[in-house]
Amino acid sequence: MYFASDNWAGAAPQIIDALTHEARRFGGAYGTSEIDHEAEALFSEIFERDVAVFFVATGTAANSIALTALNKPGGAVFCHSFSHIEVDECGAVEFQSGGARLIPLPGNLGKFSAADLAGAIEPFSPEVVHGGQPMAVSITQATEVGTTYSISEIKALSEVAKANGIPLHMDGARFANALIDLDVSAAEMSWQAGVDVLSFGATKNGCLAAEAIVFFDREMAAQAPYLRMRAGHLFSKMRFVSAQFEAYFRGGLWLELAAHSNAMADQLREAVAGSNRARLAWPTTTNEVFIAMPAPAAEEMRKQGAQFHNWSFSEDFQANGNEVLVRLVTSFATEPDHVERFAELLNG
Amino acid sequence: MYFASDNWAGAAPQIIDALTHEARRFGGAYGTSEIDHEAEALFSEIFERDVAVFFVATGTAANSIALTALNKPGGAVFCHSFSHIEVDECGAVEFQSGGARLIPLPGNLGKFSAADLAGAIEPFSPEVVHGGQPMAVSITQATEVGTTYSISEIKALSEVAKANGIPLHMDGARFANALIDLDVSAAEMSWQAGVDVLSFGATKNGCLAAEAIVFFDREMAAQAPYLRMRAGHLFSKMRFVSAQFEAYFRGGLWLELAAHSNAMADQLREAVAGSNRARLAWPTTTNEVFIAMPAPAAEEMRKQGAQFHNWSFSEDFQANGNEVLVRLVTSFATEPDHVERFAELLNG
Amino acid sequence: MYFASDNWAGAAPQIIDALTHEARRFGGAYGTSEIDHEAEALFSEIFERDVAVFFVATGTAANSIALTALNKPGGAVFCHSFSHIEVDECGAVEFQSGGARLIPLPGNLGKFSAADLAGAIEPFSPEVVHGGQPMAVSITQATEVGTTYSISEIKALSEVAKANGIPLHMDGARFANALIDLDVSAAEMSWQAGVDVLSFGATKNGCLAAEAIVFFDREMAAQAPYLRMRAGHLFSKMRFVSAQFEAYFRGGLWLELAAHSNAMADQLREAVAGSNRARLAWPTTTNEVFIAMPAPAAEEMRKQGAQFHNWSFSEDFQANGNEVLVRLVTSFATEPDHVERFAELLNG
Amino acid sequence: MYFASDNWAGAAPQIIDALTHEARRFGGAYGTSEIDHEAEALFSEIFERDVAVFFVATGTAANSIALTALNKPGGAVFCHSFSHIEVDECGAVEFQSGGARLIPLPGNLGKFSAADLAGAIEPFSPEVVHGGQPMAVSITQATEVGTTYSISEIKALSEVAKANGIPLHMDGARFANALIDLDVSAAEMSWQAGVDVLSFGATKNGCLAAEAIVFFDREMAAQAPYLRMRAGHLFSKMRFVSAQFEAYFRGGLWLELAAHSNAMADQLREAVAGSNRARLAWPTTTNEVFIAMPAPAAEEMRKQGAQFHNWSFSEDFQANGNEVLVRLVTSFATEPDHVERFAELLNG
Repeated sequence: MYFASDNWAGAAPQIIDALTHEARRFGGAYGTSEIDHEAEALFSEIFERDVAVFFVATGTAANSIALTALNKPGGAVFCHSFSHIEVDECGAVEFQSGGARLIPLPGNLGKFSAADLAGAIEPFSPEVVHGGQPMAVSITQATEVGTTYSISEIKALSEVAKANGIPLHMDGARFANALIDLDVSAAEMSWQAGVDVLSFGATKNGCLAAEAIVFFDREMAAQAPYLRMRAGHLFSKMRFVSAQFEAYFRGGLWLELAAHSNAMADQLREAVAGSNRARLAWPTTTNEVFIAMPAPAAEEMRKQGAQFHNWSFSEDFQANGNEVLVRLVTSFATEPDHVERFAELLNG
Repeated sequence: MYFASDNWAGAAPQIIDALTHEARRFGGAYGTSEIDHEAEALFSEIFERDVAVFFVATGTAANSIALTALNKPGGAVFCHSFSHIEVDECGAVEFQSGGARLIPLPGNLGKFSAADLAGAIEPFSPEVVHGGQPMAVSITQATEVGTTYSISEIKALSEVAKANGIPLHMDGARFANALIDLDVSAAEMSWQAGVDVLSFGATKNGCLAAEAIVFFDREMAAQAPYLRMRAGHLFSKMRFVSAQFEAYFRGGLWLELAAHSNAMADQLREAVAGSNRARLAWPTTTNEVFIAMPAPAAEEMRKQGAQFHNWSFSEDFQANGNEVLVRLVTSFATEPDHVERFAELLNG
Repeated sequence: MYFASDNWAGAAPQIIDALTHEARRFGGAYGTSEIDHEAEALFSEIFERDVAVFFVATGTAANSIALTALNKPGGAVFCHSFSHIEVDECGAVEFQSGGARLIPLPGNLGKFSAADLAGAIEPFSPEVVHGGQPMAVSITQATEVGTTYSISEIKALSEVAKANGIPLHMDGARFANALIDLDVSAAEMSWQAGVDVLSFGATKNGCLAAEAIVFFDREMAAQAPYLRMRAGHLFSKMRFVSAQFEAYFRGGLWLELAAHSNAMADQLREAVAGSNRARLAWPTTTNEVFIAMPAPAAEEMRKQGAQFHNWSFSEDFQANGNEVLVRLVTSFATEPDHVERFAELLNG
Repeated sequence: MYFASDNWAGAAPQIIDALTHEARRFGGAYGTSEIDHEAEALFSEIFERDVAVFFVATGTAANSIALTALNKPGGAVFCHSFSHIEVDECGAVEFQSGGARLIPLPGNLGKFSAADLAGAIEPFSPEVVHGGQPMAVSITQATEVGTTYSISEIKALSEVAKANGIPLHMDGARFANALIDLDVSAAEMSWQAGVDVLSFGATKNGCLAAEAIVFFDREMAAQAPYLRMRAGHLFSKMRFVSAQFEAYFRGGLWLELAAHSNAMADQLREAVAGSNRARLAWPTTTNEVFIAMPAPAAEEMRKQGAQFHNWSFSEDFQANGNEVLVRLVTSFATEPDHVERFAELLNG
């Protein structure tokens, strides 16, 4: 019963097959093979627009290089206080950009509002160099707490960003799960809603290691080839990343995998709703489920083989008595009978 | 006939098998799985010493993070003027370290001498802050031009480094090929010869993407976990890198692959020696062969399907007439009949 | 009536005299003259301990280079949310350190408590590289809002810092004003209270531009000469900074100047206490006075020639009706009759 | 007999007078006073064109911030191998820019040619991200070895730079001395000859500490306010730098001071020409004179009170027997009788 994280999963068989095929042949290095160009072209197809795309090793690399492409001296990036770049990337954005600052914003359910964003940008003034300057807005979709921004929420944030002359970045480590939830197209959830740069994650959803930075405006990407190279993120055997993406998109595999993942989470949510020992800490709609249960029950379930992490973000949650907050994450690899077994255990 | 580079090769079947196995199961993320610990432990076994090891995405990442672990403000890294960090990494060391400088040294056959190193360090003085300070020495083994430093040459360089209070880094992108050439142990060619930090490359020699930074002194590695993380080089599904290393070392696969690669280069060298249209530009002993041949002959061979790059480093080489300098690289995947076919073409 | 800031003042005559004297002679550059050594030695005398001292151009340089000397990758600096490094230095610490992060803490009257500090450090764990690592604590003395930390408050913060293995930095842009307020020695308010590194400001208190980084532990300063040089803060004619410090300390001038400044603020505080149009926004004890008054009254006083800034920090202050929050800063150069005139205007 | 460096001199009386005047009054901080605007406007007047100008503490700050304004990831700056940024600034450009690289070019008399520049830029290709990208050309005027680029030489370098899409930076630490030598206007020696950004030095020529970055194209300066601030180079009491520049330019003082300095060097050159113990190592035309003399003679002169440094740059110089290479620098403050005394000693 693996619910610790979606990066505890292995890789989808189709992905491995693609690697196996690729391993047997020769090809140009550093992204010059035909399959590299094909994989890049697939992004333009998926997003229904010409995009500039750069593959990198990790989501942290994608986020930090994407934001560095938008860098300004004394620059401030507005993000949620729960965001991965703020909480979990060891200062990668600050480092990669040579000193940009993150301005964490509060907000319910892992999201901040356009009004809060406007309020945070407002004190910055071009007259006062001391305070630095706004540089970008970054949102996570799906959020770190299992929710999603609606299309209109993204548009509202984008409008505030544009009104202040700064671009909107989206950390899409779980982009596919959000897409399934909202039932919209990749274009609708990104550039059509005002997103300028996207960290597109595929690792969590069935790949081994395949992350991409997608620029919807090629001009913003002008320096990206150098930013990636100097950061050590240009793979020599890039073909093995491209092959993952090619298999990931082929026949809509990526959406299938995410749909399964979300469906498994739906079953977990149902199980919790029907349980008298646990309750949903807040409503989620993707592949993360946050539940409150008595600490002893959580320990007991761990002893029975359930793997999950306790969680500490708490603005959206008030514990009762001896409750602990627990995060459950499903993935493309989650097995239905594991969910069933978990549900059984949950009911004691 | 793929001789353009060893990173044009795919991956060894044993490596792919290991990935396939790993893909089917769940495991802790970010290097916390059993296989991660096993792979790390294998390094200590291979090097006959407790080492601290950090897996990263590329050789450029390995080199630049390794040297950043040795960083000093105003720091100078002494390296060969042909070295990968100087020529081919887009300023990665300078960037990652926040401004360290490379001091390129000349030297025949891709190697600089202990005397030249001493001469380059000598002008630096702790009294004169303006000039900065020595920070590290970096050598490449095997070198960028197909040669190797002998053990005594490495020791001599290490002694100069130590006498000046700075560590010795080795860029081992082709570590295995050098090992086969010198017929020594990994320990003998690294820490026993005075190497403090090693960029250990496995990608070129049969992996998909598997590079490691090996610290022979754990204290030097104290900040390495953070240096790697902030650079976006800590894989979430680290298991897929660890599995490559595990398969790479198992049963001495890595040495077998490198031995094959070097043997193929031997055959190329023989073919060139027996050719009346080409000559060896300088002697090499690993999996790179540099040859001079008339430009039209090179073009003709390309038309026949031979893939290789022209080369521009010239201190060791004087062209006659219309000769071009050509680099041929063999790999674990080089097929003997390709070498034979190339040899035939070479003789016109 | 100049109350906009203490950096609107000119320079004390004794300081100018010293420069005039120095201008007429020759001397070694880059801090090698006798007067440079004398000025450095004076710091050891004033602080009753051997210190390593580095002169730089600005307070921002002092703060950012001081903290960079304590730098760690993924490093976090704990500071007050009002602190100059957080609010007013355009990301200088983040830039100079190559990506360190500031963790702003709330706290009444511009101060945070030892308990709040401990709470902020607590989530960091060496097991979890993602969150980065604690690197330093930074406090401002006197604070940005006119108050001072007591010696025991500093000691308590230092104990928390030490318990967590990180040093304590003090931004002493108004060090002398705090010293006068607390009536203690420079040693008592710095290293004896647990301060490891001090940004010592003299510019605001009568110099033209004279700031120093004082390390109470020479080992922490090992890289400081290079950090300063690469940042462009080693003056060629350093003698002109050293001469300022020499005159600043000679005969206790610095304490005299600060005593005058604080006394002028006392008179302002008295005037406000006796006014029926204004009230103290919160109690201050150094050369900054924060008052609340009706917006029209503030405008009227500006028309009468009073110079001061509105202020926005508000956790410590609740406005009534149409009140604005106003900051008044006195300096060594504040003229008593300006204070009197201001007091008269204040009473309408 | 102070010939060690022009930064061993004090400051011109007119400069000190200006500071004394400024010290007695109040004024807006951080460059907002009237005198700040006046000083900035003077630059536009002197250069006969609207310029964006930024005052900083040191020449190293000017050079490194100027070049950082032109920064590109993986960027390469082409400069002379003798240049201050390469030899004497502790990696300031590399640090400030977050990793730009200096490409040192050889060239007689401290100058490199347009042809050498073109040859150095040529290998860079936008197709090959590994090598980085050209970012700027930097020349020093007057050079580090007492010579000057002619206007046509500067134009030729600028043309090569422009043809490659990169700007031309001039390190004008001794700008005034070069101007006197060439007998041209500031405009002619800068933007009219193709210079895009200038580090304008006044410290060596009579100020205490007054350096400026001059952008001839305001667009290039767009980020400069933030680059300066985050580097800790925005003085709070900027008025004291502005006042120096105001006095420096008033009535052509700066040209007078430089003319004196060059004239003193002329006398030294004459003395050497007439000496049988020394010879000019190479011809110079500004305020630096490089001479060869027997080591014992140099030591003897030092014992007699002559202050000067030995020099090590040697491409332009071949020592005979026991000769040492010695650098003599004159300044605005050099006293004629010191030159005479030196001349006497020189003749033994």
